[in-house]
Formats: sequence, C-alpha cells, structure tokens
Amino acid sequence: MQIVLIEGDGIGPEVTQAACRVVAAAGVKVDWVKAPAGIPAAEQFGEPLPEETLEMIRRYRVALKGPCTTPIGKGYRSINVRMRQGLELFASVRPVNTLPGIKTPYEKVDLIVVRENTEGLYAGLEHEVVPGVVESVRLITRSAAERIVRFAFELARHRGRQLVTFCHKADVMRLSDGLFLECARTVADDYPFIQFEEKPIDNVCLELAMDPSNFDVLVMENLFGDVISDLAAGLIGGAGPGGGLGLVPGANLGTRFAVFEAVHGSAPDIAGKGIANPIAVIRSAALLLEHVGHGAAGARIERAVIKTLQAGVGLTGDIGGTGTTATITDQIIKNLGA
Amino acid sequence: MQIVLIEGDGIGPEVTQAACRVVAAAGVKVDWVKAPAGIPAAEQFGEPLPEETLEMIRRYRVALKGPCTTPIGKGYRSINVRMRQGLELFASVRPVNTLPGIKTPYEKVDLIVVRENTEGLYAGLEHEVVPGVVESVRLITRSAAERIVRFAFELARHRGRQLVTFCHKADVMRLSDGLFLECARTVADDYPFIQFEEKPIDNVCLELAMDPSNFDVLVMENLFGDVISDLAAGLIGGAGPGGGLGLVPGANLGTRFAVFEAVHGSAPDIAGKGIANPIAVIRSAALLLEHVGHGAAGARIERAVIKTLQAGVGLTGDIGGTGTTATITDQIIKNLGA
Ligand SMILES: CC(C)[C@H](C(=O)O)[C@@H](O)C(=O)O
Ligand SMILES: CC(C)[C@H](C(=O)O)[C@@H](O)C(=O)O
Repeated sequence: MQIVLIEGDGIGPEVTQAACRVVAAAGVKVDWVKAPAGIPAAEQFGEPLPEETLEMIRRYRVALKGPCTTPIGKGYRSINVRMRQGLELFASVRPVNTLPGIKTPYEKVDLIVVRENTEGLYAGLEHEVVPGVVESVRLITRSAAERIVRFAFELARHRGRQLVTFCHKADVMRLSDGLFLECARTVADDYPFIQFEEKPIDNVCLELAMDPSNFDVLVMENLFGDVISDLAAGLIGGAGPGGGLGLVPGANLGTRFAVFEAVHGSAPDIAGKGIANPIAVIRSAALLLEHVGHGAAGARIERAVIKTLQAGVGLTGDIGGTGTTATITDQIIKNLGA
Repeated sequence: MQIVLIEGDGIGPEVTQAACRVVAAAGVKVDWVKAPAGIPAAEQFGEPLPEETLEMIRRYRVALKGPCTTPIGKGYRSINVRMRQGLELFASVRPVNTLPGIKTPYEKVDLIVVRENTEGLYAGLEHEVVPGVVESVRLITRSAAERIVRFAFELARHRGRQLVTFCHKADVMRLSDGLFLECARTVADDYPFIQFEEKPIDNVCLELAMDPSNFDVLVMENLFGDVISDLAAGLIGGAGPGGGLGLVPGANLGTRFAVFEAVHGSAPDIAGKGIANPIAVIRSAALLLEHVGHGAAGARIERAVIKTLQAGVGLTGDIGGTGTTATITDQIIKNLGA
C-alpha cells in the first residue's frame, strides 16, 4: 500500500518517523512515498507547498502529514489552508478525549470537533476598501454547510452518545449563520434518533471550560472550529508547552482525498533533539489506518498509546516524563502486543 | 447624581435591584432613571431598544444595564450590539479573576479581556450573493484598531503585571488582521515599559485552557473577544448553570458614554423566583462607581463581594449555597462595613 508521507519541518521528520515505525510494528506494510512541504520545500523549490505534493496526494489519495511551517513575510498563503482547499478536504475531524496519566482538571472528556474546512473566513477573500479600511469575507454556502453537518451526523451515528451540537453566532451573523443554522436543522431532521443541540459559540466556550464531558460531536464553521479544537485540546492536555496539542490527532477528509495530521506546530526550539512527543502523529496514523481499511491495526495502536500513558514509562517531557521520542515510541511498540 | 438604569428582562429587574441596594448602602446617592429595553420594551413599544433609551443614555452619559433579551424571529438586531454601535461604546472591558470559595481548577487568574466593540463581524454587513451563498463582512479599520489597542495599553499601565497580549489570526486573514497587527505594533511602540505579546487566537484558547494565570490584558477584535471573554469566565466560574458568567462584570466604554452590564443572560427559567445571583451586576455597578468618581465606594463593594464569597454565607445556588438574591445581597451590604 502506497501512502504519501509529508515529513514537514522542525520536529516533523522525527515524529512522522516514529509514526512510521509504529505502523510497521503494527504489521501494516506501507510503502511511504515522501513529498515535500514546509521550509525545506520553500528552500528547495521556492514554494512551501509544491504542486507536485498536491499531485502526489491526488494520485495516492491518502497522506500522513507532519507539521509544516509556512514561511512568513514572503506572501505565501498557509500550507494547511491551501492543502485543504486544493484537495477539497471539507471536513476537519479532531477527536479530543481524556487520556490516562495526563494531569488535567477534567475527566471523561470524549468529544470530536468537526470543522468545515474550506470556507468561512478561510476562503481568503479580502480587500482594502480604502487605505486603513479592510474587509475580510466570511463565506457560507448551503452546499458546504449541509455537507459538513451531514458528515457530523454520520460520525455521531457510530458513537454511543448520539449527540450533535451545532455551534454558531446566528444572533449576530443573521444571514450567514442563519443559513448555516437552517441547513443544520434540515439535516438534523434526517436523524431523529440523534439528539441535536444548537448553541452560540460563546456559550460553547463557556460550557467547555466548565465541563467538556457534556459534549459529543461538535460541528461548526472553519474559524470557530480552529478555536474550539485548540480549546478542547488545552483542556485535556498536559502542562508542557503545547499542552494537549502533543496528544490530539487530526484528519482532513474529503470525498476523494484524506490527509491525516497532528494539530501541533513544528516546535523549532526542540527540533532535531529527539525529545518531541510523537503521540499526536502516531494517533493520526492510527486514524489513517482505520481510513484505509486497517481498523484493527489502528485500534491496536490507539490502545498501545493508552497503555503507554497509563504505565508512564519512557514518556517525553511535555507529559511529565524524562524520556525521548525513541523511548516513548519503543514503549508504544512494546505495548502493541499487550 | 442621575444614572440610567436598564432593568432588562428575566432576572434583570431582580439583580439590578440588588445592585441599586448595594450602591445605596455604600453611601453613594444615585437617582436611578429607568429606561426600557428587552422584552418589556418590545411588548410596550414594538421595539426592544427604543430610541428614547439611547437618548436617555446620551443625556445622562452613564447606564447600568441588566440582561436584555432580543426577541428572535422578528427581524430585530441584537440590543447589545445596537447599543454599543449606537453610542460608540468602542471598548468592552471584562475583568476575569479568581474569586475565593468558588470551586475551579485554576488559581491566581487576574486578566482583563479588552474587546473592540463596534466592528469586525459585528458590523452587520451581510448579503446573499445568490441563493444559498452568503457573505458576512469582517470590517477592520485602522482608526478603531489603534484606538482599542491604545485603550488596552492605558489599562495595562495601571496594573501590576504590565503585559498586553494581542490576539489575532493574521496568518489566515492577512489583510484584515494584518492591518490590526500592524496597528497593535505601532501603538505598542509607544509603551516600551509594557511587555507586548502577539498570539494567534487558537493558541490563546489553548493557553487559557492550560493556565489562564499567565495573561494580564488581552486585546482583540469583536468576535474573538466575545469568545475569549466567555471562555475566561468559564474557567473561573462556579459549577452552576452559567458558571462564571454569574460573577463577571462588564463595561462598555466610549469617548462620551458608558454602559456597565453583566455578561450573563436573562435566565428566564429562574426569573421572578428571587434566587438569581446578583454578583455580576453588583460588580458592574462597582466599576460604574469608579467611572463616575466614586472609586472608593466601588472598591469597597468589590471587597465586600470578595468577603461574602470567602465567608460562604447566604450564597445562591449557582455558587454552591442555598440562599437567595436577597440573602447574598444582605451579606454583601453587611460586609461593606467590614
Ligand atoms: C496553521 C493554521 C492556518 C491552521 C488553521 O488555522 O487551520 C492551524 O491552526 C490548524 O488548526 O490546523
Ligand atoms: C448577546 C450577544 C449579541 C452578545 C455579543 O455577542 O456580544 C453577548 O454574547 C455578549 O458577549 O455581550
């Protein structure tokens, strides 16, 4: 099986390498096809997201991606945003759940943030009206709104809780979130067996901060999803820099293509030191395996991660250990058999 | 001294009444001039925010406001938004700090959210391009951006920490938040004695969730401020419905006018039962007193609230007590002397 591997930059090569080791140890033979993106690509091709990389994902359909830095001040648009739009990866899926051994005030969190991944304020439509006056456009379309809400309900259908929360600000953006809300209600009608809630985004922030265990599947517009997924990751995360971002996997899914990526950045300060936490990318690889029909192996990897956190041996510094990328990966591989 | 009182609806009359009692007990003679807004105004005048109410605030300059519900489905624009724009109350100020006796995972939180209050996605500029395609405009102007950042620095100047964090999403909204960021940097240059940080809004959510005590003054665009202020309130709040919103005061300030309001809603489910927590409005009244030159009385009220929470006597249900609006207000008044 050929799958594209985007190592990215900073800690990217180290953590994606760890994920590849775990996948191999789980018994899935993957022929990783490397594709460049991020700072190395910008240096080599003058373009942080070369067209060949998009072409390779189009060819092989599925990719695992490490953190990629978009060089700033050079007029480049964000790699992540361009990849999502260029491949029409319309759904961002970020599961956030309580993990054993991680110090956090919240328990029994088990939610998924489903984020519309192509529109909203990420549409990239902006202009200067006159000097000193700028408008950014927040684009909402019926087709994208219905599609993402349906996606969320399909996800919720296979989970125990059967709850979908639609997050919006329709009292202020009466046309755009009015349309989104209308679409959400229409789709919700198709799922009478799943509970549907609609909540203002500010309330959702408040309630998440108070008790994130009350949520199951949350679905929302692009920028709201950006904010809510980081907030949720912060709530379940360790105390180290980056917190939960070192633990939370991510998937960008479209009709034809899929890119699995950790949500964290490339942490240039610790790059090359072999001490980065690879769990977010390893768990993203587990989601990838599930996607390509190796669900059992994916589930084994996820269980091995949990066991490793439980045992607390070999952990990296961000989650309270003194180990390295290698020691934690070794432990996860050892626990694959357990 | 004449000050406008907007009782609002739901629990509004009860909690604003409590605040008026406390102000009187603190020895400040206020002649409250009632002005209608919310559901009663909509019923009586066919308009939830009658022009007379705005006129009265223009005349007396300062108002204390309870929660006001904008009736939905009737095409009304939000009362809060219209009031802020109509009176050019360009700065929303929401102090969030750890309170004694309130069960929360976080300690030593003492931050202020400064929110641009007139533009961004709240400008109300939206249109349907074709059926099923809607655009909302996020408006950023240099003048409003510079004004709010300067306001934040002026606030920070009088606090111990001397730290201003500007929150943005300039990597995605390169023009609009690019402009805002440029303005923030320009203003920051005028305050070399205050530390200035700029952070993506998603990072801020993550870091707030991990440890809100690292922040001092946060300044940002309108919708970001809406979300961040509720998040912060959630982090320091009690476990009851509404959490920290029952505790957090708010001020909407402009060059000429000022409206002090709690951030919470009108809680129609408990309206009229005399059990609502009045602390948010009482603390808003304390801010109001400071604004109109009665800082000592304002500080006494704030101290009395802290003492009351510390003593834990007479508290309302949302913060773990079995008392009523009256009992907690009595305690606060008693503690004014302490
Ligand atoms: C890097 C940035 C453009 C990106 C986003 O805002 O989507 C990131 O924050 C994320 O959440 O994947
Ligand atoms: C009621 C609503 C329009 C308002 C806002 O979004 O500003 C509220 O959430 C607030 O924060 O004061």
